[in-house]
Amino acid sequence: MRIALAQMRVRARCPRENLAVVREYLALARMQGARVLFCPEMSVPGYLIGDDWERPSFLSSITESHALLAQHAMSLGMRVVFGSVGVDSFQKGEDGRTRRYNAAFVSIDPHKEESERARSRNSVVAHSNAPVFLEHPLTGLPFFPKTLLPAYREFDDPRHFHCLRRLSLETKIPLENLLAIVDFDGLRSGLSLCEDGWDDDYSVKPMALQVNTQGARALFNLSCSPYTFGKRDKRVRLFSGKAQALKVPLFYVNAVGSQNIGKTLYGFDGGSLAFDAQGSLLYEGGFFREELAVFDIDDSENTQDPTTASLVRVVEVRAPFASHPNIPKAPPSLAAVSTASFASQCPPPTRREAALERLVALENILALTCDAWGIRRVVVGVSGGIDSAVSATLFARVLGPQEVYCVNMPSQYNSALTQNAARVLASRLGCPYAAAPIQASVNLTLAELKRLQFDPASTQNTLNITPLVAENVQARDRSARVLSAVAASLGAVFPCNANKAESTVGYSTLYGDQSGFLAPLADLWKHEVYELAHAYNENVFQREVIPKETLEVVPSAELSETQDVTRGQGDPLVYPYHDALFRSWTEHWERLGPEDVLAHYLDGSLENVLGCEQGLIRRIFPSPSTFVNDLERWWTLYLGMGAFKRVQAPPVVALSRRTFGFDKRECVGPFEWSDAYLALKSKALSQSHNA
Amino acid sequence: MRIALAQMRVRARCPRENLAVVREYLALARMQGARVLFCPEMSVPGYLIGDDWERPSFLSSITESHALLAQHAMSLGMRVVFGSVGVDSFQKGEDGRTRRYNAAFVSIDPHKEESERARSRNSVVAHSNAPVFLEHPLTGLPFFPKTLLPAYREFDDPRHFHCLRRLSLETKIPLENLLAIVDFDGLRSGLSLCEDGWDDDYSVKPMALQVNTQGARALFNLSCSPYTFGKRDKRVRLFSGKAQALKVPLFYVNAVGSQNIGKTLYGFDGGSLAFDAQGSLLYEGGFFREELAVFDIDDSENTQDPTTASLVRVVEVRAPFASHPNIPKAPPSLAAVSTASFASQCPPPTRREAALERLVALENILALTCDAWGIRRVVVGVSGGIDSAVSATLFARVLGPQEVYCVNMPSQYNSALTQNAARVLASRLGCPYAAAPIQASVNLTLAELKRLQFDPASTQNTLNITPLVAENVQARDRSARVLSAVAASLGAVFPCNANKAESTVGYSTLYGDQSGFLAPLADLWKHEVYELAHAYNENVFQREVIPKETLEVVPSAELSETQDVTRGQGDPLVYPYHDALFRSWTEHWERLGPEDVLAHYLDGSLENVLGCEQGLIRRIFPSPSTFVNDLERWWTLYLGMGAFKRVQAPPVVALSRRTFGFDKRECVGPFEWSDAYLALKSKALSQSHNA
Repeated sequence: MRIALAQMRVRARCPRENLAVVREYLALARMQGARVLFCPEMSVPGYLIGDDWERPSFLSSITESHALLAQHAMSLGMRVVFGSVGVDSFQKGEDGRTRRYNAAFVSIDPHKEESERARSRNSVVAHSNAPVFLEHPLTGLPFFPKTLLPAYREFDDPRHFHCLRRLSLETKIPLENLLAIVDFDGLRSGLSLCEDGWDDDYSVKPMALQVNTQGARALFNLSCSPYTFGKRDKRVRLFSGKAQALKVPLFYVNAVGSQNIGKTLYGFDGGSLAFDAQGSLLYEGGFFREELAVFDIDDSENTQDPTTASLVRVVEVRAPFASHPNIPKAPPSLAAVSTASFASQCPPPTRREAALERLVALENILALTCDAWGIRRVVVGVSGGIDSAVSATLFARVLGPQEVYCVNMPSQYNSALTQNAARVLASRLGCPYAAAPIQASVNLTLAELKRLQFDPASTQNTLNITPLVAENVQARDRSARVLSAVAASLGAVFPCNANKAESTVGYSTLYGDQSGFLAPLADLWKHEVYELAHAYNENVFQREVIPKETLEVVPSAELSETQDVTRGQGDPLVYPYHDALFRSWTEHWERLGPEDVLAHYLDGSLENVLGCEQGLIRRIFPSPSTFVNDLERWWTLYLGMGAFKRVQAPPVVALSRRTFGFDKRECVGPFEWSDAYLALKSKALSQSHNA
Repeated sequence: MRIALAQMRVRARCPRENLAVVREYLALARMQGARVLFCPEMSVPGYLIGDDWERPSFLSSITESHALLAQHAMSLGMRVVFGSVGVDSFQKGEDGRTRRYNAAFVSIDPHKEESERARSRNSVVAHSNAPVFLEHPLTGLPFFPKTLLPAYREFDDPRHFHCLRRLSLETKIPLENLLAIVDFDGLRSGLSLCEDGWDDDYSVKPMALQVNTQGARALFNLSCSPYTFGKRDKRVRLFSGKAQALKVPLFYVNAVGSQNIGKTLYGFDGGSLAFDAQGSLLYEGGFFREELAVFDIDDSENTQDPTTASLVRVVEVRAPFASHPNIPKAPPSLAAVSTASFASQCPPPTRREAALERLVALENILALTCDAWGIRRVVVGVSGGIDSAVSATLFARVLGPQEVYCVNMPSQYNSALTQNAARVLASRLGCPYAAAPIQASVNLTLAELKRLQFDPASTQNTLNITPLVAENVQARDRSARVLSAVAASLGAVFPCNANKAESTVGYSTLYGDQSGFLAPLADLWKHEVYELAHAYNENVFQREVIPKETLEVVPSAELSETQDVTRGQGDPLVYPYHDALFRSWTEHWERLGPEDVLAHYLDGSLENVLGCEQGLIRRIFPSPSTFVNDLERWWTLYLGMGAFKRVQAPPVVALSRRTFGFDKRECVGPFEWSDAYLALKSKALSQSHNA
């Protein structure tokens, strides 16, 4: 039997466009002689659509479109398998609303008389007399629900969907009898959705049950699984291991695209997979590329022998972002390894390889997002520093340099060095450039503030304009006065150039440099931003585009005399240490708290635990008390002002294991130092005192 | 047996403070002769703490504090029952991390030799040799997990916690045998947590199982259930119905306080409940007031007779916000009804009663939030309009008028009428006041923008400063330039005065009037803001404090010549209609989409469905095509620019059935008009054409 996987672009909340894409893939698959086309999870409505699932008219319109798609496939003599929302209007979900499932739909085999098996309900759903979808014999539902609903990171499946586990509990039907087992041209197949394959942390193992209790001879998994760094590696190992352990070929089809849940933007990188019954990789889908992969599968007549599978052809459909010739279609860390041997012997990527992977991912996610949001032009506030330089470069690559308007906005504190670097960057990229000095406006504001008097006399009648207030006036003048208006006047938007270290502790000005339509770098630590810059100069452009001065100048906000880069004065963050420290709070699997950090500091293991250079901590902190002060300062900002500012921060492009926003949920408010922390602190301070 | 309910204030992420409060209640309860004290769900760590559950050191510190609390209760000869996080370090949760439960802890009866029943695990958790918590005989866990985990609105329980349903599935122990049944001085009691009582939409009914299969003779529910308008009514009916149907007395203890999940701020209003075995209300806890309620419970010797229960005494502990003498402790809609008859015959509140309930709730939530966040002073931008007037009044009541700095920021477009109204408001409230005209700064900005030129020549070399750009320049000048700096200079913050109608469609300027530390009114429709203003003048102050001019002037942004209030020119929103329309999209149980609205318009039922005045729609829209244009304009803004702006909006105080932010989750991006909508639109436009 010949089947095809549609690694298609899925647009959230755009079913008509998605259906047109499925039809395109159906036509392509038919040309390749395939009998069944497999599309990703939620490929009709999109996956990350917030609470739009609650709108009954939206559900109806999706449900009606399913039937038309199935009829179309049948008219081509094909079957289409796709993920979408399965609505059971006869039942309530646990939110009290119409019950919805994250489900797989299987159109009826046009070559067989299956329709007699499909009864009443199906016709209700299809709004026509002829059933078009296969029903589960026990549930009677014309679709097959997901078993495992992820409820971590960005995933809210239990919020939106009912699942097989709940259904089994309600109906008392053993779960294994509710799983999706479908006969494709005589091949008894287990069909599942995304998380059903990621079963490590669940007591139920859907794929193993499909093979071991239901006799499946091949497995198909429909996914809509977002990109994060390192996930592809895990994905290949996981599914290879499943195929090998269960001795069946396994096919995994994932979407391409960009979807978001408001505060967090995800890229979907494709990376569809096929393994033979020995777990060897037959195919891995391109990185952020739309393609169709065609396979032949033959079930052995002897059921002792495994089913065989082989790749027939890969048809390129579209690359949403046409990459630069110097950038490979797959990032080097992926492409370097022969696919067949991947699962067993993938070396960890070098720092440069990691930077290139992130760069390709970022460019694709930005291209997809700008396309979806109708953004064709941006204004970038270029300071001459590293973050804005990388941001401008990213957008110049994605939108074309002529659509990236660079604005440098010096106050009296900005050095000629950085102003010059900003101008040089724009010129080398080929971007329109303007200088818009802010000092006149800042002076006016400060003068007005000094004059302001409240009446009648109150506790505090006039304003106390501290240096910090004056710094923030500059930052807000740039973003909320200049960039916002310039962008609006050009029919453009402007990005927020914050990195993750700044975001973690709120080292930014609200309504100032924290502003922007999205934050492309806010899931990258400062050193990772530098690595992107080097990768651009050395691998992509193969010349110095991001100026040497930008790469070498001390990172600084240049908002006061005490932040003079010509005297080497910069940020209060010592990035080689603080990047690693903040990472341990936010991304380490076992999140570190201040008590853990202090304990490691006291026993000398902190540099090892954080993965930073030996001797660094002693160089930065002359005594335990300076260490403790620094730790308390940043931890307080992380849980306090940082969290407060993140509530109003722009959407972040997710790249890491944990991204601020909807992926890392937070409350705002006070916290306590634990007894364990306070005991360690006493110990540390007494060492300081004794030293 | 005498027991007590602790309607205590719970502070998120402040276990030490919470434990001190529990100890205080234990002492009070002992003075009242109570043997058992019941505290709310999650009363040690707080409930809404985002993903802080993932930090192992935080979990350890909470777990250690439990044992000390139980030992303290035992030393007083008492038992303490409280909700907190139950950690099972031997198992993983479905997120792959240490398994956590939302659980009830029951300290061991100091008068009985129960300790032999408590074995190995308990001592691991307590870090001491003597077991201090009752274990479940089958699970061996020294706590009793929640059965039903809410996953709607603001609730993310399945994200953070394992539950009895999953445990039952894993262990194959029937769920009813896993439920919490505790013997309190011979009274066989069912203990449950919050959602376990709200079982309407679940196939499992924990309380009914506790009584009908486990022989419970009384029920106790520990809750941490936030305030929203109308919930108290539902709460009383629900639990009264349970007591009546199951023929047992039922005790429900809820927390007081303010907790948030970043973008959405919740008040916890107390409202603890006790019912006798006939379902009659014995007690309802004060609205946002800390108190201890003491009851005597006697189990009948004849198990055919129900257990009896009676209220002994209510001890007032604290009112977080000392209300004005004209404001009753409970809102009038609640206080007006005799408690005994509430469940059966509660009349719907009048509009004024509803306004007073919202007013009391808002004042308490703001007081609790400012207290938690350490905010003692605010700056309010007072425009002379209704929203800023109500906002200033709220804060003047909560923080004292001397701490509410009112700033009026006129441009050339602001009328003398509104400027005067702003000054009068501040004077009547007794707030410090200043005028800070923005025209000089706006002129400078517009002049600078006009001069700006990009180099080299690009597609668009100079800026196109449209009227909309110039309007937004003013709005951002006020918030990001003036208010931000004034607030910082006064050690204050400033609120965002947006209402829900504006928020729905993003009728506000990002980094302009959308800014603020929180948005007290953003869960109130415009007409509800007016109702608050009238309630203030007529019920609270009993004189005109919010000026007549503010109440009567047409709502207007006053940002251009076309928004001249002296000529009656104001917002593009016709609030009596658009409030109701937007409400149908966001708060109606069956969310309306454009196809539903248009269908109701065409069949003449829309005014009924929306609940607006008959004839209004015909008055506003002379033809179907004007109706369609308006519908498409606002729907596009609601899902488009409105959602985009809400990502960066301040936290909203939740009052309604659905609040923007974490309660109503959204994606940002395009959407499609459904086929059903397009068909109705053709029909409507052909009617327009034919008309």
